[in-house]
Amino acid sequence: MGASDDRMSAEDRLIADYFKPIATHPGALALTDDAAFVTPAPGTDVVLKTDAIIGGVHFFAEDDARDVARKALRVNLSDLAAKGATPLGFLVSLALPKDTSADWLKRFALGLREDAEAYACPLFGGDTDRTPGPVMVSISMFGSVPSGAMVRRAGARPGHRVFVTGTIGDAALGLVLRQGATWPLTAAQREHLLARYLLPQPRNALAEVVRAYASAAMDVSDGLAGDLTKLCRVSGVAAHIDVAAVPLSDAARAAIAADAAMRETALTGGDDFEVLCTVPPARADAFRAAARAAGVPVTDIGVVEAGAGAHFMDGGRELAFHRLSFSHF
Amino acid sequence: MGASDDRMSAEDRLIADYFKPIATHPGALALTDDAAFVTPAPGTDVVLKTDAIIGGVHFFAEDDARDVARKALRVNLSDLAAKGATPLGFLVSLALPKDTSADWLKRFALGLREDAEAYACPLFGGDTDRTPGPVMVSISMFGSVPSGAMVRRAGARPGHRVFVTGTIGDAALGLVLRQGATWPLTAAQREHLLARYLLPQPRNALAEVVRAYASAAMDVSDGLAGDLTKLCRVSGVAAHIDVAAVPLSDAARAAIAADAAMRETALTGGDDFEVLCTVPPARADAFRAAARAAGVPVTDIGVVEAGAGAHFMDGGRELAFHRLSFSHF
Repeated sequence: MGASDDRMSAEDRLIADYFKPIATHPGALALTDDAAFVTPAPGTDVVLKTDAIIGGVHFFAEDDARDVARKALRVNLSDLAAKGATPLGFLVSLALPKDTSADWLKRFALGLREDAEAYACPLFGGDTDRTPGPVMVSISMFGSVPSGAMVRRAGARPGHRVFVTGTIGDAALGLVLRQGATWPLTAAQREHLLARYLLPQPRNALAEVVRAYASAAMDVSDGLAGDLTKLCRVSGVAAHIDVAAVPLSDAARAAIAADAAMRETALTGGDDFEVLCTVPPARADAFRAAARAAGVPVTDIGVVEAGAGAHFMDGGRELAFHRLSFSHF
Repeated sequence: MGASDDRMSAEDRLIADYFKPIATHPGALALTDDAAFVTPAPGTDVVLKTDAIIGGVHFFAEDDARDVARKALRVNLSDLAAKGATPLGFLVSLALPKDTSADWLKRFALGLREDAEAYACPLFGGDTDRTPGPVMVSISMFGSVPSGAMVRRAGARPGHRVFVTGTIGDAALGLVLRQGATWPLTAAQREHLLARYLLPQPRNALAEVVRAYASAAMDVSDGLAGDLTKLCRVSGVAAHIDVAAVPLSDAARAAIAADAAMRETALTGGDDFEVLCTVPPARADAFRAAARAAGVPVTDIGVVEAGAGAHFMDGGRELAFHRLSFSHF
């Protein structure tokens, strides 16, 4: 056989079989080209984000590949939500160990497809390579906002209220549970915490509301305490948080009741993928109403003040944390 | 110390020290936010590409980190060149082994910065993680073209001439040399082949010319034979290549003279990062003149015909290759 035959490489076949159905945007050219293109709507900015997850670091090797794919997408979708952006699509760079099975790939593609559809965020292109290391899934995601409207970390001003969506700490406690913690929880409580670690539930339903009302926003991925500290630093302000107001699930409360040290884990542990934002006080009620209409629970947990740092107040006393946030370094 | 202190994580410090100077675009927000944004010029499309390189797969562990960074950027820049796109910027997702030294990072950032400047392609954001595996550098790059003007693989029609830039096979032969081949080469020839493997020289200077004249284009990254086969498949045509016309460097000729099997390696081996394109015959002279004006050597190597596959003709005989192109699978 010469070069005239039309053999496809294993990589081409893999892409054709599993990933093409996710590349529904015409600019993706059905993944038959070197690159893709997108035509942004006039008057919009393209929001850009990349975040990777690695086997043994951000997920367990034995996790269902469907969940791995969805986690990889959702950690990026969460950033778009916090920036007030609507997803446009994503690129995926996938490094796979040699022994990766066809079934793993099939499950991975299934997860990617499900969430690409659920979040209207199609695949525009990708790159697959063999690696002697663990699975690594690097997603680059792009979204759109009206020009100049991307919500930033900078923008919090003294007097603004601090809000978070959902509940805080569940995923971090789910990880501790998975690592062998033996708190006396109900089956439903265990399941809740484990599920919150396994699969983020990003708040893309709130993106427009964040854009309309928030003075500053970010998603909580490295722990509430550390992430709020970052927001304060860039905004040049302090935040005073009422620890009692921080929303916790029943399951998280039960874990903290069993082991008081878990309160710090909940506040600093990361993987929440909730939205943290500040809202001018005059707009707080309207923000709350808009969030309710969007179906996303939000809680006022404190106030922005002049100064520096995030201060977590437990009654009259400020909490001292052993570490501010989760870091892979 | 409580959460009120302004400690930065090791990751934040690393980013601040080394990567901020590369994030020169205002939309990168000096890497102080979760995401970045870019405002595409009216009437333009955003071209999207991702490609990763992995230690021990695409480069050697002992390679200078400066070259690793530049290779990671350039394999993506090469795609933009072939698509006729002007670079806008990039995102980098970096997985680092635990024992990565500060010096390695410094060299890596140096290379990233040099090429970001040389190609006017600034950093918009990134993600760094520790990995139990080898270094992985995943770049997502975006560029711009006038709306609808991205040059595709589909578009080659019977009668169109087939062109390549530069010389073919140098990088593949450089890899064989690095793996221990003992051909009788001059020091300059050795250095030429090794350098072509170590560091691609993407043809971004030709991007506008490709856009103006090419009916189809792609960059040669997986070997001329395999990549041309892909272009033919998507265009629904055949290509007949005159092997004697394929441009080879003196060094490549010397390697092939020493070992005739190296001809196949040159034609199928990959990592060329030259532009392969087709041009309607009536425009071929103008294309050649425009390429000359851009300072990029181009060579007419054959013709598009009806049919299927890429046929490499050596006199009257068609070459039979053992494998069409390099695949990491």
